[in-house]
Amino acid sequence: MPKIAIMGHGVVGSGTAEVFFKNKPGIEKRAGKSLDIKYILDVRDPSEFAGLPYGDRFVNDFDIILNDPEIAVAAELIGGIEPAFTFAEKLLTAGKSVVTSNKELVAKKGAYLLKLARDNNVNFFFEASVGGGIPIIRPLSLCFSAGRINEVAGILNGTTNFILTKMFRDGMEFADALKLAQDNGYAERDPSDDVGGADACRKICILASMAFGKQVDPDRVPFEGITGVTKADIDFCTARGGAVKLIGIARRNQSGGVDAEVCPAFVGGGSQLAGVDDVFNAILVRGEETGDVVFYGKGAGKYPTASAVISDILNALKTPDNPHALCWEESEGSDYGGLVSGFYARTANGAFITGEMTRAEFNAKYGGDGVITAMRVFDNL
Amino acid sequence: MPKIAIMGHGVVGSGTAEVFFKNKPGIEKRAGKSLDIKYILDVRDPSEFAGLPYGDRFVNDFDIILNDPEIAVAAELIGGIEPAFTFAEKLLTAGKSVVTSNKELVAKKGAYLLKLARDNNVNFFFEASVGGGIPIIRPLSLCFSAGRINEVAGILNGTTNFILTKMFRDGMEFADALKLAQDNGYAERDPSDDVGGADACRKICILASMAFGKQVDPDRVPFEGITGVTKADIDFCTARGGAVKLIGIARRNQSGGVDAEVCPAFVGGGSQLAGVDDVFNAILVRGEETGDVVFYGKGAGKYPTASAVISDILNALKTPDNPHALCWEESEGSDYGGLVSGFYARTANGAFITGEMTRAEFNAKYGGDGVITAMRVFDNL
Repeated sequence: MPKIAIMGHGVVGSGTAEVFFKNKPGIEKRAGKSLDIKYILDVRDPSEFAGLPYGDRFVNDFDIILNDPEIAVAAELIGGIEPAFTFAEKLLTAGKSVVTSNKELVAKKGAYLLKLARDNNVNFFFEASVGGGIPIIRPLSLCFSAGRINEVAGILNGTTNFILTKMFRDGMEFADALKLAQDNGYAERDPSDDVGGADACRKICILASMAFGKQVDPDRVPFEGITGVTKADIDFCTARGGAVKLIGIARRNQSGGVDAEVCPAFVGGGSQLAGVDDVFNAILVRGEETGDVVFYGKGAGKYPTASAVISDILNALKTPDNPHALCWEESEGSDYGGLVSGFYARTANGAFITGEMTRAEFNAKYGGDGVITAMRVFDNL
Repeated sequence: MPKIAIMGHGVVGSGTAEVFFKNKPGIEKRAGKSLDIKYILDVRDPSEFAGLPYGDRFVNDFDIILNDPEIAVAAELIGGIEPAFTFAEKLLTAGKSVVTSNKELVAKKGAYLLKLARDNNVNFFFEASVGGGIPIIRPLSLCFSAGRINEVAGILNGTTNFILTKMFRDGMEFADALKLAQDNGYAERDPSDDVGGADACRKICILASMAFGKQVDPDRVPFEGITGVTKADIDFCTARGGAVKLIGIARRNQSGGVDAEVCPAFVGGGSQLAGVDDVFNAILVRGEETGDVVFYGKGAGKYPTASAVISDILNALKTPDNPHALCWEESEGSDYGGLVSGFYARTANGAFITGEMTRAEFNAKYGGDGVITAMRVFDNL
């Protein structure tokens, strides 16, 4: 009987354990075998968890998991680069599969860890790292093999989408909407990774790496959050029949490279992303053969994310399906800054919309004109 | 080098061959090996295809494919039950994987063919049978393993959605909209399977079989098409802020069974399906842990469907991933007719909307009241 280890007992880790033990018979039926979570790694004293039905599984020492030959797969649900990266590297090297919900880890170290998994004939899966319970990683890797993906774009952060929806629908200003999100548990006490765009940037980098086959480094992709968006901008865009959304986008360019960016943007009313509200996420995949495909659902939350982690665990327990598996290559430094679009600009005298240009071209042309807010315009998403 | 056979050179078959040869280098890279289409089976004389770049692959005799040990996977793109079923049965028994776009075959014979594939350690895949280029079969089988799906529902037929969109948006009557669909190539000369609901019924049966694990027989599921929908119905629903859509739906009921139906229905304006227009399809999967997930895209068409077929071929070439594979069981006769919803009813004196009830209850209560049109109301999809 293959044994599972959960590393990290925060929101996702505790949800994973809870759902696993609640649905164990059904999960085992789908896996075709008996399964058990043998260890739950957490920095807190195991006695703190004694009251849980699986309280006897808690350990503090990672090496117990690493050195136990019964452990076939470990779920890394700690977050951040370290110690998550070291743990994943050691586990894969030891011939254990790893699944993770850690977007920072995958965005920065994906190519390396995928190759390490391949070299050791095990799996490295990360469905939960983008879009919570929305299936997107596996469909991208298995269902678009016939042709070429030209663009991926999406609403990738539920916190900011909730805030923008409140600003749009209820006329709230940013600070009030953020407070409401925090009161509802949709935003963390330090919301900077969400509202500043870093979280969405990691996610679009994972999607771009998969879609285009080369690591897209989040440290090189320009990103901007929603802290500068005002009600005046939203009112202008609404009057024009669209919505303001925090968009992550990556697109093949004409010189064979990739342009990518995360930015608040005006999306037209006919856009498939304009109507995605509240904490929902949506990801648009624009394929040459398939046309536009959109995946929509809850992009975060304890149980949707736990559901993705458990599905990955079951998939990881199967024979590694190299070489037609998830993979992308390391990439030398690239510049992703060439994205072309129209721009919305607001000055003290009013607002206007430009023709198609890069951000550098926009800044060169309009930077001195007293622009208070500038925002990309995507009318075709 | 594993060889592929294409059976049927109609719209999907010719698209599959065309995309395969156009994108061969990229497809082989993703497969991790060289690939070739060795045979294309068609009833027409092979000389008719001599002008094609792959014109030398055409054969009339199925046994050539069946008896060639080089053939690892065959794509059944003929449609209908026979000879498709006999071909699939013989190929699987001979240890060759089969992929298909044939919804009739999968809806009627899925449980049997999936078991046959499992018993012979090969794959039977059918991503292209529902939703064209929208990934739905593979996500359903691989990404919802942690919990329970309570409901699947969708707009599953592009032809009828195009017609309803024209009736709604341009005020056309049914017959004119159908003619326009035929002129645009969106409807066949004999459109009865589409406009009568049989096509959508097969598709919801495939989705329901997967979601609930037991074969849902399309011959036992009540279905109704859109031929009875009038502009008066659409106007009433539009005034109430929603849309009329042909909905396929399957839902767990309280006695442990499944209720399923295909019917024109009024969906509320807040529904995730209300804004799906033209030839687009959308499938809503309502999971206990995941919440609502929606898959949206082009539900038909030569290249989207070919893309799904080719992805399936690559997936089928991998090691069969039993037992955590696609599967559902045979089912003794069930009654799927217990679906509960509100009803919209139009009489000569006007229209009204009822409370929640089954169709039998509706008929018993209002059948004698001069009802001209009756339509289900789904406000929560």
